[in-house]
Amino acid sequence: MEDERTYAYANAMKGGEGPHSYAQNSNYQRGVVEAAKEKIIEAVANHLDIKTLSASLNQVCVADLGCSTGPNTFISVQNIIEAIQHKYISKGLNTQIPEFLVFFNDHVSNDFNTLYKSLPPHRQYFAAGVPGSFHGVLFPKASLHFIHSSYALQWLSKVPLDVIDEGSPAWNKGRIFYTNAPKEVVEAFATQFAKDMESFLIARAQELVIGGLLALFTPAIPDVMSNSDTFTGTELDLLGSCLMDMAKVGLVSEAKVDAFNFPAYFTTPKELKALIERNGHFSFERMEILNNQKKHFTLRNPSMSSLSLRATLGGLLEKQFGNEIMDELFNRYSKKVAGSSFFLKPETEKTMVLFVLLKRNN
Amino acid sequence: MEDERTYAYANAMKGGEGPHSYAQNSNYQRGVVEAAKEKIIEAVANHLDIKTLSASLNQVCVADLGCSTGPNTFISVQNIIEAIQHKYISKGLNTQIPEFLVFFNDHVSNDFNTLYKSLPPHRQYFAAGVPGSFHGVLFPKASLHFIHSSYALQWLSKVPLDVIDEGSPAWNKGRIFYTNAPKEVVEAFATQFAKDMESFLIARAQELVIGGLLALFTPAIPDVMSNSDTFTGTELDLLGSCLMDMAKVGLVSEAKVDAFNFPAYFTTPKELKALIERNGHFSFERMEILNNQKKHFTLRNPSMSSLSLRATLGGLLEKQFGNEIMDELFNRYSKKVAGSSFFLKPETEKTMVLFVLLKRNN
Repeated sequence: MEDERTYAYANAMKGGEGPHSYAQNSNYQRGVVEAAKEKIIEAVANHLDIKTLSASLNQVCVADLGCSTGPNTFISVQNIIEAIQHKYISKGLNTQIPEFLVFFNDHVSNDFNTLYKSLPPHRQYFAAGVPGSFHGVLFPKASLHFIHSSYALQWLSKVPLDVIDEGSPAWNKGRIFYTNAPKEVVEAFATQFAKDMESFLIARAQELVIGGLLALFTPAIPDVMSNSDTFTGTELDLLGSCLMDMAKVGLVSEAKVDAFNFPAYFTTPKELKALIERNGHFSFERMEILNNQKKHFTLRNPSMSSLSLRATLGGLLEKQFGNEIMDELFNRYSKKVAGSSFFLKPETEKTMVLFVLLKRNN
Repeated sequence: MEDERTYAYANAMKGGEGPHSYAQNSNYQRGVVEAAKEKIIEAVANHLDIKTLSASLNQVCVADLGCSTGPNTFISVQNIIEAIQHKYISKGLNTQIPEFLVFFNDHVSNDFNTLYKSLPPHRQYFAAGVPGSFHGVLFPKASLHFIHSSYALQWLSKVPLDVIDEGSPAWNKGRIFYTNAPKEVVEAFATQFAKDMESFLIARAQELVIGGLLALFTPAIPDVMSNSDTFTGTELDLLGSCLMDMAKVGLVSEAKVDAFNFPAYFTTPKELKALIERNGHFSFERMEILNNQKKHFTLRNPSMSSLSLRATLGGLLEKQFGNEIMDELFNRYSKKVAGSSFFLKPETEKTMVLFVLLKRNN
């Protein structure tokens, strides 16, 4: 029933609670969650019909897709539940407030043990974990009322095969991402993203009740910008150049660098809109840019940037290059970031978070 | 919403997949699962009304409580689902076969990561994990159709306080279980079991739909037998005596042995029946003794017995006494088992598995 391929992004996040773990280094993502709160409140207040919820035995089912190990997922879920409770109260339906069942989803290799240990003790919902790729169907038909996903859609289900194929015009030699790569490479990534979004939307359309909401927060770039101007693109470019430097002095194998690409893609509002319209099962309720107050704090500081990148992507790098080169790699990276003028110019901080609110139509 | 105490039994099972893991050493429990298959088939065929299932949006929810890390839980769940599918087919309702959502429950400290990695790839159900004690409510009201629990109810939510209280007549000095203990000790364990069963049944009555089934498989002893005649009681008694031997030669602290008791209790059919009747929310559909074909194989072999005990209880012992004494302890135990005539006499194999099938009444 579920596609059991090992998804490339699955080992990206560092599990556990150590100094390099995602749980300890997801400040930027926390900023997204905080800015998302008002969007969630508005979504529930103006776009979620209580009749949609009441049809289902006084039980509301919420899912967070790509939850990682917390704590951000718990804040998002709490915001959703409080918004729904508030809606009942504001309509004088205090006695009809439903029970909540929350599904925390991430890939099978996510550290669910850590997630479960940090579940809020006084939560007002029943909690369940759902292991598996959100590019496949994860829940029975029409069983969810509200699906949320924050900072997860940018992960591809796999690295596009062409970019690691020496014989292909899209071979991405000497780079680990499509920043500043030939257009064939960029197109290979874009094509994979389109396929993944198609699978994602087909699955969600099946799982949501009619009238149910899908709230997506995803990093993106403005329609009129190239990826080389973006913050994350430049970060990954720098990290790739550190790996190539290390390959030149024999610290890592160059063939391993060539064979490695980050399975991620930053969409544009226009591109994402077209993919959603092509699916046809959702009506657009909202599409806007989120204001993340924390990004300056996290991104302007080279060692914070290094820690944040290591927490988010370290697992994937370790798998390819081994744990023993990680300190060296991120030391080199910190130095390059500190010496790069790109990170000091506010006008270059052009990676944004896109908020899209969709409703499952009839 | 959920009681967040750290339950004593939670660290009993050895996680992971190593040579001392529960996953590799649950042969006896596997025998229970195999013998249970025909009971499950009969339960669904004769006691589960399709109308009960069809009321819920063509989605059937099944829970396995105390699932551990597998693989036995997957076999049980498969048996339940095939039995339900077969029931639809046998009634000519092939096109109405529902989708299945299966909840795997165990304590927060269970190794869910291992469980998820071993989920059957071609399963015909959606899978979710639910961390938390089954002595509390784990699911929304009337949200489950079939609850299953195998070899888990014997675990108490905690060691009764009296048995580790030096000032109490129920102080269980020099023993780690109630086998051959004064009646005050036995009563303290029985009282804790009664409280735990009360919480368990209250929670299940709330979670099951009217007409939903609760299938319990639990180790028990015959009504007319004392615990000192039982297999597991004698095993734990021997293990306790090994610990006391080690205390005498200074390998473990005697105070630590006194402070340690296994949080488990083996009920009798009569006792369990009375507790279920007192709850009042269930009708008795079946109550019978299971025939476990594998028990001879597992229990007659001293080293198998030692491995099996270590897999089931090793985690709990490690927590109290440290990992470093485990090899010594189980070596001593294997020798004592080999030298004990108790384990050679077939008539002493009197621990049995009780099958109880309950239906949630109106």
